[in-house]
Amino acid sequence: MNVEVTDGKKLVKVGVIGMGRIGLVHLEAITKAPGVVPIIVSNPTVSKAEAAAAQYNIPKFSDDAMDVITDPEVDAVWICSPSQFHADQIKACAANNKHVFCEKPIATDLAETVEAINACNEAGVKLMIGLQRRFDQNFERVKQAVENNEVGDPIMIKLCSRDPSAPPASYVKGGGGIFTDMAVHDLDMTRFLAGSDPIDILAIGSTHIDMSIKDFEGSEKYDTASCIVRYPNGVQAMIDVCRQSSFGYDQRAEVLGTKGMIQTDNVYPNTAKIYKKDYTGNADMPFDFFLSRYNEAYVTETVAFCNSLVNDTPVPCTGTDGLIALVMAIAADKSAAENRWVKFSEIIKEVYCASPTECELISQDSMFPEGFRPTVNPEDLLVPDVDKQKANPNGSFSDKFKNMFSK
Amino acid sequence: MNVEVTDGKKLVKVGVIGMGRIGLVHLEAITKAPGVVPIIVSNPTVSKAEAAAAQYNIPKFSDDAMDVITDPEVDAVWICSPSQFHADQIKACAANNKHVFCEKPIATDLAETVEAINACNEAGVKLMIGLQRRFDQNFERVKQAVENNEVGDPIMIKLCSRDPSAPPASYVKGGGGIFTDMAVHDLDMTRFLAGSDPIDILAIGSTHIDMSIKDFEGSEKYDTASCIVRYPNGVQAMIDVCRQSSFGYDQRAEVLGTKGMIQTDNVYPNTAKIYKKDYTGNADMPFDFFLSRYNEAYVTETVAFCNSLVNDTPVPCTGTDGLIALVMAIAADKSAAENRWVKFSEIIKEVYCASPTECELISQDSMFPEGFRPTVNPEDLLVPDVDKQKANPNGSFSDKFKNMFSK
Amino acid sequence: MNVEVTDGKKLVKVGVIGMGRIGLVHLEAITKAPGVVPIIVSNPTVSKAEAAAAQYNIPKFSDDAMDVITDPEVDAVWICSPSQFHADQIKACAANNKHVFCEKPIATDLAETVEAINACNEAGVKLMIGLQRRFDQNFERVKQAVENNEVGDPIMIKLCSRDPSAPPASYVKGGGGIFTDMAVHDLDMTRFLAGSDPIDILAIGSTHIDMSIKDFEGSEKYDTASCIVRYPNGVQAMIDVCRQSSFGYDQRAEVLGTKGMIQTDNVYPNTAKIYKKDYTGNADMPFDFFLSRYNEAYVTETVAFCNSLVNDTPVPCTGTDGLIALVMAIAADKSAAENRWVKFSEIIKEVYCASPTECELISQDSMFPEGFRPTVNPEDLLVPDVDKQKANPNGSFSDKFKNMFSK
Amino acid sequence: MNVEVTDGKKLVKVGVIGMGRIGLVHLEAITKAPGVVPIIVSNPTVSKAEAAAAQYNIPKFSDDAMDVITDPEVDAVWICSPSQFHADQIKACAANNKHVFCEKPIATDLAETVEAINACNEAGVKLMIGLQRRFDQNFERVKQAVENNEVGDPIMIKLCSRDPSAPPASYVKGGGGIFTDMAVHDLDMTRFLAGSDPIDILAIGSTHIDMSIKDFEGSEKYDTASCIVRYPNGVQAMIDVCRQSSFGYDQRAEVLGTKGMIQTDNVYPNTAKIYKKDYTGNADMPFDFFLSRYNEAYVTETVAFCNSLVNDTPVPCTGTDGLIALVMAIAADKSAAENRWVKFSEIIKEVYCASPTECELISQDSMFPEGFRPTVNPEDLLVPDVDKQKANPNGSFSDKFKNMFSK
Repeated sequence: MNVEVTDGKKLVKVGVIGMGRIGLVHLEAITKAPGVVPIIVSNPTVSKAEAAAAQYNIPKFSDDAMDVITDPEVDAVWICSPSQFHADQIKACAANNKHVFCEKPIATDLAETVEAINACNEAGVKLMIGLQRRFDQNFERVKQAVENNEVGDPIMIKLCSRDPSAPPASYVKGGGGIFTDMAVHDLDMTRFLAGSDPIDILAIGSTHIDMSIKDFEGSEKYDTASCIVRYPNGVQAMIDVCRQSSFGYDQRAEVLGTKGMIQTDNVYPNTAKIYKKDYTGNADMPFDFFLSRYNEAYVTETVAFCNSLVNDTPVPCTGTDGLIALVMAIAADKSAAENRWVKFSEIIKEVYCASPTECELISQDSMFPEGFRPTVNPEDLLVPDVDKQKANPNGSFSDKFKNMFSK
Repeated sequence: MNVEVTDGKKLVKVGVIGMGRIGLVHLEAITKAPGVVPIIVSNPTVSKAEAAAAQYNIPKFSDDAMDVITDPEVDAVWICSPSQFHADQIKACAANNKHVFCEKPIATDLAETVEAINACNEAGVKLMIGLQRRFDQNFERVKQAVENNEVGDPIMIKLCSRDPSAPPASYVKGGGGIFTDMAVHDLDMTRFLAGSDPIDILAIGSTHIDMSIKDFEGSEKYDTASCIVRYPNGVQAMIDVCRQSSFGYDQRAEVLGTKGMIQTDNVYPNTAKIYKKDYTGNADMPFDFFLSRYNEAYVTETVAFCNSLVNDTPVPCTGTDGLIALVMAIAADKSAAENRWVKFSEIIKEVYCASPTECELISQDSMFPEGFRPTVNPEDLLVPDVDKQKANPNGSFSDKFKNMFSK
Repeated sequence: MNVEVTDGKKLVKVGVIGMGRIGLVHLEAITKAPGVVPIIVSNPTVSKAEAAAAQYNIPKFSDDAMDVITDPEVDAVWICSPSQFHADQIKACAANNKHVFCEKPIATDLAETVEAINACNEAGVKLMIGLQRRFDQNFERVKQAVENNEVGDPIMIKLCSRDPSAPPASYVKGGGGIFTDMAVHDLDMTRFLAGSDPIDILAIGSTHIDMSIKDFEGSEKYDTASCIVRYPNGVQAMIDVCRQSSFGYDQRAEVLGTKGMIQTDNVYPNTAKIYKKDYTGNADMPFDFFLSRYNEAYVTETVAFCNSLVNDTPVPCTGTDGLIALVMAIAADKSAAENRWVKFSEIIKEVYCASPTECELISQDSMFPEGFRPTVNPEDLLVPDVDKQKANPNGSFSDKFKNMFSK
Repeated sequence: MNVEVTDGKKLVKVGVIGMGRIGLVHLEAITKAPGVVPIIVSNPTVSKAEAAAAQYNIPKFSDDAMDVITDPEVDAVWICSPSQFHADQIKACAANNKHVFCEKPIATDLAETVEAINACNEAGVKLMIGLQRRFDQNFERVKQAVENNEVGDPIMIKLCSRDPSAPPASYVKGGGGIFTDMAVHDLDMTRFLAGSDPIDILAIGSTHIDMSIKDFEGSEKYDTASCIVRYPNGVQAMIDVCRQSSFGYDQRAEVLGTKGMIQTDNVYPNTAKIYKKDYTGNADMPFDFFLSRYNEAYVTETVAFCNSLVNDTPVPCTGTDGLIALVMAIAADKSAAENRWVKFSEIIKEVYCASPTECELISQDSMFPEGFRPTVNPEDLLVPDVDKQKANPNGSFSDKFKNMFSK
């Protein structure tokens, strides 16, 4: 098993926590990635781990995630467990010096998110967050068009994101509301496509599908929401989300630029169209299950992390990306509640400006991007990640800041 | 010439003011409408009127619009002159007891608009405003879907409206800004599709295409704008407009309902697609001239007014529709300037609540729709139009109100 | 009424025979064409002629087609009567020195078709045949692409032509069969797109929709047929036709060239698409009535003939075009009956080579295009039309030939 | 490595011959299929076999295909070697009692094809041929529509198949001509979609792209071809193929039925569309490499064979399917050469009716399907395959027949 590939690089050995649907998707993707080999998988119901091990010729399996995290042979861990375990498992990985791929979210709480990221950064391990839409071939093509200036300078970014059908009210209750639970993907996507940091946000919500949620707290009461996000240079981003589209996932992007427009359509299982007495259209509905809709994206994402591991290059989707998306969602929530534009710095301030001194320190730090001043950019709450530390080996980052938040 | 059609109805005789491009489109449409016959046309450059008369076998032509308005044979007048003449010509038609079709806008000023409408209503003549998009077969199909509940109850109305290319800065200067000059069509369309009156609006603008307008007054400085309009029952309408799309008119509508979605696409001169080494797409660009893009709509619109004349039925697009669209545009302007949600009643209040008494009278009037209270609905500034007067022969409308504003 | 247009040209005065649906379409188109004025219309049920005259301000109407043909003021006649009257009315027009627009077919019989065409040619009047698909904006765009070499040199021309639903068996019986009755439009279209004369044809037919026609004579028994037509330089044309497509007209064209492909799609009443639980497609079916599907084409066609009249230029769609399409259809019929490739010259030979001398004369005539030798090109049975006579004022055409066939 | 999966079935162990591009695609697919495990791979350049073994954790590799075929642990072999080795390797597999998956073609020669198939049938091993288009999700969807009668009874099957660009003349020379080399996939697809055996064929060819092949033998001189294939009940199939489409693979299918139509489109790498000054269409070209275009199909195909192995069910694409496709292609070749309809039985007769007795025996055999009589169906040259033998355990098949051809 100590195979050396021909160019002399050692195989990267990895483990996967969680053999549910998404874990299996990642495991299969790992088997396709050159230079990476899965050596252990875990799942509480151990028969699932055993079956996966048999299927993919994996030597070890366990019912305990810690067996993966502490395995001395393991170089990197995929965390595909339920969300509530993410933050602790990330920190355990950092403590055991393993690189980490973690399905989103890191945590639903801002402080816990910052802590988990900083744990990785301090340990010097890579942390990649599974914002899988960034790896979807359709959204990716729009990003590429923006980067290559194919439609000129961006003017307007429009995203539409609708789920096939609304979840039960019991799922919605306590889920954090439509912005952190659902629109967070789209908020991240506007930032990914804009290629810069946003300035402020305006959001509204309403209820149309399941009236039983109408009296829930905050944005948990909404099944429909719209946001406008302002980016530097007058770039406007518009998002609309809805818990139900009836016809499958409805997730489209459009960017208008000074020289033209690019837009994506939904994804169908095949190209067939049927024409009948009372029907002229697609032979089948768009995908209505996230694993079908984003199947290729999950694979591309895992392969991308594998490449980062094998070649020791920066990960394409960092903990910070997850953090900023969370801040944007929290700000949207506030905007909808208060019917007004909200600056992202307000959110940081609320969480971190308990004392005037802290606030002062943050607001004066010259490294903050324009858009997040005068208070603070969430990115600046973080210790630089392992890839940035390599880029800045002399440690230009202020210790005072590190000490203040990373605890 | 005294031809009687077989069902015994007398032919309606009409005149057309303005033999420019749009006047000719309407004139040709009139020749197609059963029961209506054009008998006089006018144009300042009289040779254009003469040529049109020859082309369509019309007995009279003139260089003076008043010859059309005062012709004793004429039953109805099409006003296709430049915008600045609209209000006065409408009032002259009312004074001469002629029904009126008028290209939008009635006027760019709120008070003058109200005056012109009231002149028609008091004279008991029909007034139809040329909001031609309402007659476009694509937007019309969306309206029909909403009315027939084909996609369930509306949740989200999305409109995108982009011109082929930006006008010269000299046209923009003094044009009233992007909301009254351009987005007004889309604001009207949200109301047409929603089938109810809006509550409030949030708008923003930015500049991307022609930087020479960047320091113009108010919303004249914007070439790009977005609006969110809230309608009763949580229905949200999102609009984005831009002065330039590069590839022709980009005017699309989308309505998401509780049971599905309907959307329209742009209009191309033919269905041909070409596939080559570096091209797979439409053989030709979308229409980039308003008369091509909306050619059928202009015809349908004129035919619709002819039907109202022949059968003495209510016009499908009233002076009030033009008035409310104008109020919405003015409110959008204010919202973009003040970065906040604006209620439409604020606009009415500013113009009409000079004294507390007036304001009180308006706000207590029980006929106001929910959405425009507590202050006032612009519709209530008006004398009831001729078709409504017929429907309410007993005159339930308060005289005090009429006296207060129509002056 | 003696209006002179400004550039000094006299108005061309025209009459229309037949005030059925298609006659009204042409009449309305005439009112749009500059320089042409309708002065008389006729219809056996005279009330229809009267109503049309009233509608379009036309001074004269009659119940007798001959009143139109013999009216001394009339310059040109539109023949929109039932097919069986076409040939005689064309000849009457020629005898009265009127230019002729005639709906297709000229006649269903080859000899009668030749006679009618020659009558016009000898009288020196223009004859245009209503092959309206040539004026459809979609087919026209494909033609334009071929002419401009947009997709390189043509390799393969594919046409698909399916009617919304099958006619009653009683209509099919005696109708001439699927090739002359239906595929004739597509056969003409391959020639229009190829821009050259065809060589030979292979056709087959089958029955699927209405089994009651299965024992009819010849190709009347088929409701489905396919043809391959060979053109010079190896260009292949494939046609498939069917009496029923269920979802409306299905009439598409595709040309593959050495540098790419152009194709057209069906025509829908609007661009709206609907997406629901069990439907994602066009909001409405494609047009299923020929007047809707080809409405614009009929107008363009009539305007094109008007232009030929006003400017005395060649007509865009000649009697010869109608004649050759008929020969192609007859050859297809023979091919399907005999299960083999049929040369078009075979058809000419059968009709005209009664004596060896005649045949010899025809086959030696040096003016015949390559593809129709050794026997004869149907075009050569004709006296040159008025426009060709103008182009060749010295009469290069052999008198022996003229005498032989025109009787 | 002796893993037992939970339901008690033993893992099927397989080997793969050929680690070129297509071999790797199949190998990766094998790793995804439950119940199957790859244990050996071979390639003449052994480093490729070694690298693949390392990548997928495979214990054995070799430079000799016979090491795979004779490995006592191996249950089934994937033959992904160059075409000229297929027939011999199939026979070697049969001799070693291994099930076989073989990339098409079995052989380019009819007799050799029959021999290889019979070798498998006599040995009682499964043989699956890689007609991968049958597993493409688009063609598969059309097949499903036909089977489920979604568009009624089939009337017309249309296939279009065009390669991105023409191969060099040196590849064409000796390649067997456009029908066996290229159209064979489409001929098979018509049979797959029709769900029955064809009756006769009409084909033509022409040359447009690379004129240097114009004087090659037989159908090697064509780069463009059309076929009509007649199926029972009047069903017509039309195929057009071309060596060059310029814009990527152009492979579309369309079936018209008595109740409607189904059609497929080409496959693009994403759904993005771009709209610019002179472009409105797909952001990227269709796939232009067969492994991209049919990537999923290759995987589905291999997984399907794995399922047959694991569950001992009939293979979905038999040696006979390959054989009949070859006969169809040979008949097309003859039709194009002789400009006439060719019955498939003619081909069989030419190869097998050397003596009248043989011919008599074949033609009287009552098992032949209607369409291939009076002479012979190629399927009847074969010993029944292993799956049919199981279905007919009593051996109803005539021994005389077996003895005659299987030698």
